[in-house]
Amino acid sequence: MTAQVIPPRSGTAFVLQRGQRLTVIDPEGEQVSDMVAFALEDQDEAISSGRTLDYASRLFLTAGDPLYSNRSRVMLQIERDDVGRHDFLLTPCSADTFRIIYGHDRPHRGCLGNLAEALAPWGIGEDRIPVAFNIFMHVDIDGTSGALKVLPPKSRAGDRIVFRAETDLLIGLTACSAEQSNNFAFKPIHYRID
Amino acid sequence: MTAQVIPPRSGTAFVLQRGQRLTVIDPEGEQVSDMVAFALEDQDEAISSGRTLDYASRLFLTAGDPLYSNRSRVMLQIERDDVGRHDFLLTPCSADTFRIIYGHDRPHRGCLGNLAEALAPWGIGEDRIPVAFNIFMHVDIDGTSGALKVLPPKSRAGDRIVFRAETDLLIGLTACSAEQSNNFAFKPIHYRID
Repeated sequence: MTAQVIPPRSGTAFVLQRGQRLTVIDPEGEQVSDMVAFALEDQDEAISSGRTLDYASRLFLTAGDPLYSNRSRVMLQIERDDVGRHDFLLTPCSADTFRIIYGHDRPHRGCLGNLAEALAPWGIGEDRIPVAFNIFMHVDIDGTSGALKVLPPKSRAGDRIVFRAETDLLIGLTACSAEQSNNFAFKPIHYRID
Repeated sequence: MTAQVIPPRSGTAFVLQRGQRLTVIDPEGEQVSDMVAFALEDQDEAISSGRTLDYASRLFLTAGDPLYSNRSRVMLQIERDDVGRHDFLLTPCSADTFRIIYGHDRPHRGCLGNLAEALAPWGIGEDRIPVAFNIFMHVDIDGTSGALKVLPPKSRAGDRIVFRAETDLLIGLTACSAEQSNNFAFKPIHYRID
């Protein structure tokens, strides 16, 4: 499969079957991609930051780490990771994010709105979109004060991460819409299914 | 209202109306209480770690901090906090937690099972229980490696935290069932609604 393009500030959704690999590529560098996953058979089963971080005993995940569902099943396994820094703490940016954090009067709908539109054919609305695995998102953490700071991604042009599906999945994926997360320039994201 | 008792390794659920205060007390010290919250009118709106941490730009919340829902509305405000260290990263402990982390053959159902039973009258099952605000839970964080370590709570006998409800809520609350979280002794939790 040739690479698919997610244009800047947009999102998509697709089926990823058990055993298939999803490669997410940052074609220009410093661009985040929010990823959510649902079990295809029963979409009440969704990717869970809280389960995954608990089992990993680590905030930062990379090659070799599994991503668990709310039912404690492994949904995805990270097979390759060129960057080594992603976020699994924060929800997708949304109109409310832009209103509350950025003070925008007419806010963009953000990754939340983009994911909800892409997932609508499967009946998944905004309320059910969980904390995303925010690929390439660089959140600096002060372990003493707990302060979080969103820094430019460490990804450079062509860097990629590869996931293997451990069960049949519905994936939502974006080219992130938030200024801070992408060093104030919106770029596309590429992906490939093999 | 006199204090209600949540016995060791159990949970409860109750309505907390807008303007009411919920006081959660650790009567013996070093005991965690997992709290979840749903909007009473529409239980698809639930407490959201990802929204709250994003808006706070901080992992550790205390007096003065609001807890947001997945719809970016303030559900609860922390009014008083004797301890100053709680967790908002991890999902409630469950049979799977005890199986995966502790290697138990016949695992306890944990806070997840206790919350699901307590919330069943409102039609809320395990799948819909989000990352909890884990009152008094002490998770040490290494900001460089991202390593998480569950330490004994900093709470001493009689320490409390007070929340004010900003909208009508359904609350789930436990006396936590996980060994590590409670320094390997299971104790009750007390709470009061005023």
